[in-house]
Amino acid sequence: MPVLRSIRERFERERPLEGVTVAACLHVTAETANLVRALRAGGAEVALAAANPLSTQDDVADALREEAEVHGHRGEDVDAYVAGIKALAESAPQIALDDGGDLIAATHRKLTGGIEETTTGLVRLRAMELGCPVLAVNEALAERAFNDRYGTGQSTLDGIVRATNVLLAGRTLVVIGYGWTGRGVALRARGAGASVIVCEVDPLRALEARMEGFEVMPALEAAERGDIFVTVTGARGVLRGEHFARMKDGAVLANAGHFDVEIDLDELRAAATGGVREVLPLVEQHDLGDGRRLHLLASGRVVNLAAAQGHPAEVMDLSFALQALATEHLVREGAALAPGVNAVPPELDRQVAALKLAALGVQIDALTDEQRAYLSSWAPPS
Amino acid sequence: MPVLRSIRERFERERPLEGVTVAACLHVTAETANLVRALRAGGAEVALAAANPLSTQDDVADALREEAEVHGHRGEDVDAYVAGIKALAESAPQIALDDGGDLIAATHRKLTGGIEETTTGLVRLRAMELGCPVLAVNEALAERAFNDRYGTGQSTLDGIVRATNVLLAGRTLVVIGYGWTGRGVALRARGAGASVIVCEVDPLRALEARMEGFEVMPALEAAERGDIFVTVTGARGVLRGEHFARMKDGAVLANAGHFDVEIDLDELRAAATGGVREVLPLVEQHDLGDGRRLHLLASGRVVNLAAAQGHPAEVMDLSFALQALATEHLVREGAALAPGVNAVPPELDRQVAALKLAALGVQIDALTDEQRAYLSSWAPPS
Amino acid sequence: MPVLRSIRERFERERPLEGVTVAACLHVTAETANLVRALRAGGAEVALAAANPLSTQDDVADALREEAEVHGHRGEDVDAYVAGIKALAESAPQIALDDGGDLIAATHRKLTGGIEETTTGLVRLRAMELGCPVLAVNEALAERAFNDRYGTGQSTLDGIVRATNVLLAGRTLVVIGYGWTGRGVALRARGAGASVIVCEVDPLRALEARMEGFEVMPALEAAERGDIFVTVTGARGVLRGEHFARMKDGAVLANAGHFDVEIDLDELRAAATGGVREVLPLVEQHDLGDGRRLHLLASGRVVNLAAAQGHPAEVMDLSFALQALATEHLVREGAALAPGVNAVPPELDRQVAALKLAALGVQIDALTDEQRAYLSSWAPPS
Amino acid sequence: MPVLRSIRERFERERPLEGVTVAACLHVTAETANLVRALRAGGAEVALAAANPLSTQDDVADALREEAEVHGHRGEDVDAYVAGIKALAESAPQIALDDGGDLIAATHRKLTGGIEETTTGLVRLRAMELGCPVLAVNEALAERAFNDRYGTGQSTLDGIVRATNVLLAGRTLVVIGYGWTGRGVALRARGAGASVIVCEVDPLRALEARMEGFEVMPALEAAERGDIFVTVTGARGVLRGEHFARMKDGAVLANAGHFDVEIDLDELRAAATGGVREVLPLVEQHDLGDGRRLHLLASGRVVNLAAAQGHPAEVMDLSFALQALATEHLVREGAALAPGVNAVPPELDRQVAALKLAALGVQIDALTDEQRAYLSSWAPPS
Repeated sequence: MPVLRSIRERFERERPLEGVTVAACLHVTAETANLVRALRAGGAEVALAAANPLSTQDDVADALREEAEVHGHRGEDVDAYVAGIKALAESAPQIALDDGGDLIAATHRKLTGGIEETTTGLVRLRAMELGCPVLAVNEALAERAFNDRYGTGQSTLDGIVRATNVLLAGRTLVVIGYGWTGRGVALRARGAGASVIVCEVDPLRALEARMEGFEVMPALEAAERGDIFVTVTGARGVLRGEHFARMKDGAVLANAGHFDVEIDLDELRAAATGGVREVLPLVEQHDLGDGRRLHLLASGRVVNLAAAQGHPAEVMDLSFALQALATEHLVREGAALAPGVNAVPPELDRQVAALKLAALGVQIDALTDEQRAYLSSWAPPS
Repeated sequence: MPVLRSIRERFERERPLEGVTVAACLHVTAETANLVRALRAGGAEVALAAANPLSTQDDVADALREEAEVHGHRGEDVDAYVAGIKALAESAPQIALDDGGDLIAATHRKLTGGIEETTTGLVRLRAMELGCPVLAVNEALAERAFNDRYGTGQSTLDGIVRATNVLLAGRTLVVIGYGWTGRGVALRARGAGASVIVCEVDPLRALEARMEGFEVMPALEAAERGDIFVTVTGARGVLRGEHFARMKDGAVLANAGHFDVEIDLDELRAAATGGVREVLPLVEQHDLGDGRRLHLLASGRVVNLAAAQGHPAEVMDLSFALQALATEHLVREGAALAPGVNAVPPELDRQVAALKLAALGVQIDALTDEQRAYLSSWAPPS
Repeated sequence: MPVLRSIRERFERERPLEGVTVAACLHVTAETANLVRALRAGGAEVALAAANPLSTQDDVADALREEAEVHGHRGEDVDAYVAGIKALAESAPQIALDDGGDLIAATHRKLTGGIEETTTGLVRLRAMELGCPVLAVNEALAERAFNDRYGTGQSTLDGIVRATNVLLAGRTLVVIGYGWTGRGVALRARGAGASVIVCEVDPLRALEARMEGFEVMPALEAAERGDIFVTVTGARGVLRGEHFARMKDGAVLANAGHFDVEIDLDELRAAATGGVREVLPLVEQHDLGDGRRLHLLASGRVVNLAAAQGHPAEVMDLSFALQALATEHLVREGAALAPGVNAVPPELDRQVAALKLAALGVQIDALTDEQRAYLSSWAPPS
Repeated sequence: MPVLRSIRERFERERPLEGVTVAACLHVTAETANLVRALRAGGAEVALAAANPLSTQDDVADALREEAEVHGHRGEDVDAYVAGIKALAESAPQIALDDGGDLIAATHRKLTGGIEETTTGLVRLRAMELGCPVLAVNEALAERAFNDRYGTGQSTLDGIVRATNVLLAGRTLVVIGYGWTGRGVALRARGAGASVIVCEVDPLRALEARMEGFEVMPALEAAERGDIFVTVTGARGVLRGEHFARMKDGAVLANAGHFDVEIDLDELRAAATGGVREVLPLVEQHDLGDGRRLHLLASGRVVNLAAAQGHPAEVMDLSFALQALATEHLVREGAALAPGVNAVPPELDRQVAALKLAALGVQIDALTDEQRAYLSSWAPPS
């Protein structure tokens, strides 16, 4: 995680979090441990509780206990989770890092600021009258444009290939939803030799897909053409009975959206009058009873996590780097921010991007003084 | 211009501009005539003056006189231009369509709203205390993401090929500036078989270029590698003496930015100790006196206009369609908008995109009611 | 023409054509003059006659007269052409460079060898019992894989854009014929943002197109989908009445094949019950009488020559370089070659490629001695 | 395996192998069982021995024993292998299918024809004076252009991503060797967002890589630029000490060539003065002792087999389909073929391609009678 490491090194020198207490309700993993260490390098006291008992890596938790207050063990029950949140609140933090909104909900009246990294958490927090500013890190451009597009784009196809061993070249792949992740899936599928069809309800996005050279059409029409379908819309019931009824024998169905509601599993099972059987790990064959069989991957759950290794490590690096910078930003500027959910300032995106370029060994230009003056004047040339 | 035509047909049915007077200071061309007719189809009275005496097509102006008040002749002098503006102001318009800001500056206190289509005009208007809302149509997404990226992207390379007859495959093309137009130039150059290097001062844009697979480096380094250079930054002095000093024999220099200040022409001439001569129309060879020769296209003016046909017609179609919809929007909602420069509402971008898709014969899905409900609730799935 | 120049420089040093007379029946242009000078630099006496009176550049012919025997003036009649061939024959050449086969047909019994650069000429020569070896330069890999694919690929789209000013992004372009040129057109069209459909009768080529991610389908089906059609098959009647009957309003028809028979012009005119008119230079609108109009470019003649500048100069450079090397090869090895049409030895392709890489400033590795030994043994590793 | 299945169905109807005995020395796997069944469907008697005791799937062998004579068990010794070959020879086959050349070497004097599927086997057979024709199926276009390019291209990157979880976008990937597989790796790497550098010793291939937009340079220069290196040359010692000495910290080394000799493992170990340790399964970190660490994948063995699932199933389908058609061809035409190694007739490639298109659901055109006549006449149009 070279980007987070470079932030940690700067934090060690500058100590921007000196005297600050940070409470974090996050997945307790090796990556989180790196974040904790970066915050501590900046001078913070850190208290950590597990956002999800299933993801807790106990060895990591134990190692971290030497440096921070850590609550939670793998497989603990809901009461222990609640106790963890409560303990964090009692640490009287200025800053709360959250995954789901519970910690911020419990502490917002006394915080300088909060940071929330899930869409679900933001929905909840936006419905509240918050007593402090909360930065929506998962809506930052560095997250969306890079992690969703390039990270999830690659890992979604990786998941499909691992599950099926399909050769993408020569196949027709249908991407439903042309947001950042959909763009990434479409780009990578074309790059792998597939012929790509995009389905999208927003005309601006649909037009962009078309101008990028993809075919664009309604999903019902695409249903007849596709060999592989990837849903990534955020909506539910995107592929339904009427779509299954038109698909070709052997079609593969995968979901890259957050929840497993994009492919209508009830209607798929109802259509499978010939039965359902697992033909490969993570591949369920649905026999439509008329000679056609559809292959559902990972039970409709998000295929890059279920069938591949999820995000490449460097994607996590950008995410955690953004959290570290957001923490610093709240310490410095939190008092000036309006209570409620705030966008991450573009300047933080730019800092993360600059550090990432350095990690890739890429150098770029700076404006000359004369250019800066010219651009800020914006007068037409004499 | 199928998009503008479909708006005109709707305007004929709905008459949204009934009783409104629109004053327009625009280039008097066949495309503008189509805009005037669409506005009149919507019920407007239109008064038109020429924004630039050099671009006026007298036959178009004469034909339009049967339908609208038209001021201006090809080649008229500045006094006539000023008189035209004055005449428009006297028509007591509610809406002003402007190209440069003079008309709006003269009328803003009495307008419902204005529409400005140039960056230069917006700079001037933003420096004023405006008495009405002004929509910045050239900053709309449909303009930037489509016209700049796809339209100027294609026509810039078209201009370079027409001027030089170079085979792009196998060449190294350096794009300096990775805004919308730079993205388009880089994309098309790669699509033509060139190896593309991007130079950019903004780390977010630079990182995006890198993640798209382009090489990214400082311009001084790229100077040694490129066969063809395209500047598209908006800044001045982007290619200077220090760059020329490192370039290879035969390098081609083209500018795709608005003004002819991106390639430093003084420093180029100073470097040409061996003399300057026109070797082909629009190609000036600068002999550096040491065996190396640099080829400047179109005297550093914007190469797609100078050496090719400028924007493809359908690009103009989107621009004028946006102006027609912006006019309608101001009539309907202008009273509710804050005085000053306003962004074009995304809904207008979406309308233009939807009409463009229809013109391309592309159909898309709509959300089902259930999906709409799900998305607006944004609750996690039960 | 840097590749031909580097050959000329070597010829000056090595004089491989010392004492050889070369007769050439070629287009008398500036490029041909460069070839003549390269041959003379190698020691040859050269006699030149114009292959086509329409293409003769009289100033070039006059300049060449100081160095070589030159027959032909722009616009001369057939008798003068025949006299030119006769004069060349009387120069008693060892080597004949031909464009169409007439010169070789007249001299083959006394030649060391001939070089033919047109398909038409080769057809004629293959039907004869030749008295000497003839090298088929237009079938060499450097010609097909580079000139046809990259050169004609770029210039075909260039011709279409110049004639129509169409924005390729977002359009569906149908390429009929997936030989080298078709591959080039398809590649460049995709690179310009078009959605590309390939039609092809050979299953190997069709499968390759599909594996490259293009849609592949019969031309009748593609007729309904395309916005732009490019024929490049070598066959006749590729687009016929049945195709025109299914096309969309506004479809553009262009031919990139050698002869103007690929689009059936008789059937197109017959279908145009609403009349035919030129709407732009080189664009004939055929009104099908039912609201649909088809746009034929350049009267169905090869569109890159008719509507753009034909091959980029560097493409001619490769062609003439190959002719110079083929001449040298015939002088050295002609006696050992079988009479009849022979393929250009791959070694000459490789020499041209190596010189072209040098001209592009690209360096490559050589095998180490150990690697060469390993590869020639081809034994599995111990 | 739909292509092989369609051949089997035709064989059942046509019985082209009636009364023929086929001996096959192949890997005994499920795919081979499908080939055996196709041959039997055509009327052949089949005797099978295991080409490699490590790859034998005993359950497959047992199932096949009901239909064919099968020799070999997983893990058998060399004597058993020799006995298997001997038993096959005693079955007095007309046709021998071989993997390595031993079976053909033992039987060629009595065969109608043989089929060899490995490069190693062909080297041995070419060094012999063969008594029958042998078809080189692994040199067929369907093998090289499709399996090597698309199959190995995809699976090589798949192997690298599975081993390292690297995000390819933004990385510089160096492909050494631009044969069919190298082309595939380069194409897919670019499609995944990597910046691709090609190293190649053959100037024609190098020029093609350059014209495709890749950077081309000597490997020593590329050594300083790459994040990931893929060797695929067929040569040995392609990456050596001098290359390792210039590489960046963190560089990944993978081999996609047949043998593990392309990366010089001795020199790599010698360079690793800081030690070697496995940091992930299949990833060996070589510490160069100066802060730089190189990561060798799969001990330099072919990375798509070692770290991913090897060829996608449909690639095997094409290979075995070609073997079935080659068997039929030898039965029909073997007597007319010259003894020695013969190329697979292009007609078989075309048949495989046509069946593959059908399996993909792709239809193509056929020439009309008039077109066929025109093309065979090859006269210029009147």
